[in-house]
Amino acid sequence: MRDVAVIGVGITKFGELWDLSFRQMIIDAGARALEDANIDGKQIDAMYVGNMSGGKLVNQEHTASLIADHAGLAPIPSTRVEGACASGGLALRQAVLSVASGIHDYVVAAGIEKMTDVLSEYATGTLAAASDQEWEVFMGATFPGIYALMARRHMYEFGTTEKQMAMVAVKNHGNACMNPCAQYHMKVSVDSVLKSSPVVLPLKLLDCSPITDGAACVIVAPAEKAKNLERPPILIKGTGQASDSISLHSRQSLTSLMATVEASKMAYRMAKIGPSDIDVAEVHDCFTIAEIVAIEDLGFFPKGSGGKATEEGETAIGSKIPINTSGGLKGKGHPVGATGVAQAVEIVQQLRGEAGKRQVSGAEIGLTHNVGGSGGTAVVHVFKRGD
Amino acid sequence: MRDVAVIGVGITKFGELWDLSFRQMIIDAGARALEDANIDGKQIDAMYVGNMSGGKLVNQEHTASLIADHAGLAPIPSTRVEGACASGGLALRQAVLSVASGIHDYVVAAGIEKMTDVLSEYATGTLAAASDQEWEVFMGATFPGIYALMARRHMYEFGTTEKQMAMVAVKNHGNACMNPCAQYHMKVSVDSVLKSSPVVLPLKLLDCSPITDGAACVIVAPAEKAKNLERPPILIKGTGQASDSISLHSRQSLTSLMATVEASKMAYRMAKIGPSDIDVAEVHDCFTIAEIVAIEDLGFFPKGSGGKATEEGETAIGSKIPINTSGGLKGKGHPVGATGVAQAVEIVQQLRGEAGKRQVSGAEIGLTHNVGGSGGTAVVHVFKRGD
Repeated sequence: MRDVAVIGVGITKFGELWDLSFRQMIIDAGARALEDANIDGKQIDAMYVGNMSGGKLVNQEHTASLIADHAGLAPIPSTRVEGACASGGLALRQAVLSVASGIHDYVVAAGIEKMTDVLSEYATGTLAAASDQEWEVFMGATFPGIYALMARRHMYEFGTTEKQMAMVAVKNHGNACMNPCAQYHMKVSVDSVLKSSPVVLPLKLLDCSPITDGAACVIVAPAEKAKNLERPPILIKGTGQASDSISLHSRQSLTSLMATVEASKMAYRMAKIGPSDIDVAEVHDCFTIAEIVAIEDLGFFPKGSGGKATEEGETAIGSKIPINTSGGLKGKGHPVGATGVAQAVEIVQQLRGEAGKRQVSGAEIGLTHNVGGSGGTAVVHVFKRGD
Repeated sequence: MRDVAVIGVGITKFGELWDLSFRQMIIDAGARALEDANIDGKQIDAMYVGNMSGGKLVNQEHTASLIADHAGLAPIPSTRVEGACASGGLALRQAVLSVASGIHDYVVAAGIEKMTDVLSEYATGTLAAASDQEWEVFMGATFPGIYALMARRHMYEFGTTEKQMAMVAVKNHGNACMNPCAQYHMKVSVDSVLKSSPVVLPLKLLDCSPITDGAACVIVAPAEKAKNLERPPILIKGTGQASDSISLHSRQSLTSLMATVEASKMAYRMAKIGPSDIDVAEVHDCFTIAEIVAIEDLGFFPKGSGGKATEEGETAIGSKIPINTSGGLKGKGHPVGATGVAQAVEIVQQLRGEAGKRQVSGAEIGLTHNVGGSGGTAVVHVFKRGD
């Protein structure tokens, strides 16, 4: 296996992008990534596209070839991968594997979702297709409902509080204010989260990530080819992916995602590091409780102590392990197919020292954690700044 | 790169499977493939799932993890890939690349589509999501309409006749009658095709492939591990994939699919053979004209002579190059995400000498050709019987 490096990243503004079409969004992100890498599109050998629900949200399947054609990259192999909200992470993983194995040299991992061209009720219904239709959705379950069950159990088992969950939102909205591409530049307080409209209690509106349009691209290449570029190469030292039941009822635990645990073990093993080596991480905070569960499952904090760690500020920038410096899904926005790639963009910017006001001082090793549905899929990557 | 072999295949009956759920169909195909390979599910390292429109047809995205869980394979990495009707071919290609590169040993390529649980008008609209929504579908184009344009141009440029197209349907329905898993066991005559209801002229009802439920699985492994099994290993000697504009209007030609030409060149080069070495082929005959275009683009016949070759019987079993011995999409049925994998099942059965009444005598080298949409994606594989 060859060492793999990220040589370019690009991202659009996240938000309600009513003036940008599906295809224009990804072209914008891709052009920025090529410019960042300082290479020509003709050098690209293949593309993987993370896109969850083009079919339902913009009535367009077959999006990988559409994008390759509109980017002027045809006839390169271009393949859409889908694992619900982990689609972007899967695209990155396939790109990394194809370079590591020597199949391709320059590969684009793209992620995109256009979610605001439909009514929000329809978008919510579309997202429910990530959970089990026959065993969950037909019975009336929604995604906030599923995560509310996890939150209730976490509160019951470990004493996690609504205030601790609210503090995830407070931190991530604060970080988002320092991220130019974030959907929300709006601070929230513990009080405003606790008093926001109930969605499925204990989750309130400000515990939930939003509906978002956005696209992101990452270009990967063999590490030896990255040495000649102007920017420091960011090596991808580990990649892990795992599956689990996509429905909650057949899991052994409601307070841990087995797929996260397995995927992170795989990535740590490949990178030959452990969770204590990570300087900065982007984790999948589709709901505030999800961040608390994630920072435990990834090994940053013992199981059950994620709420307390958040309350004590240990996940803030400048503290033990800064989590979701980009603003996370909660503050930056969550265009589902793009999220996994956008997480990689943030970590690359952090490890390059290009994260501006939200820079984590001296960050050398970073991690991304992308979840599909309520944990049916998880993808973890470990990044390290090269010399 | 390691040599890769198919060690097991499994397929369901194709047709209107109202008594089988989405998840049960793929479990049936997968169990047959494991039994065929004589290995245990615990040996499987990863899975790729070809599925075009689970989101629209059964309201279920995230199908790869769903399938891994229901097959008892979690937590293995399980990834859905989508390229419209080429989704199955893409799954096979990803599986082959992951074994060739040494990333995994035993990998399942699965393909599935459940299309008859919705009204056929809705299914037709879903399939249209494989073509360009903004530039084709919004203007009123349908898939039969797009292929009718290609047919008209082929007739104009090369003198291809409606009778020649009809003979593709006659041959493929005849072959399907000898295939137990085919949707149709019903011979058709040139006259009945020509007199069937007009869909978009020159294409009539019997020029079109049907709406189908079905699933297929292929298990691939390093060739050296296949040597100890009871059955002769079938080596995958070449794999090729290419992209093109998914809309017809921006192509240079209406009578050739550039993606097919490029993907087949890639596969032939890797296999170190040419089209004249192929003994049997499954090509993407979503409409009768598509088979005529394909056998030209794949190099079996000179451009423009595919209709004449069909009329003269050169694509029949026992003739120059038997095409679609399974019955093809036309006679066997076309569960879109499953088709590319099902093509591989047929070629493996042919090269093993297990194709029963439709056996091509002495077949040693076979080819599969899977197309997404009207040619935005093409995937080609070359198979060879091992020693």
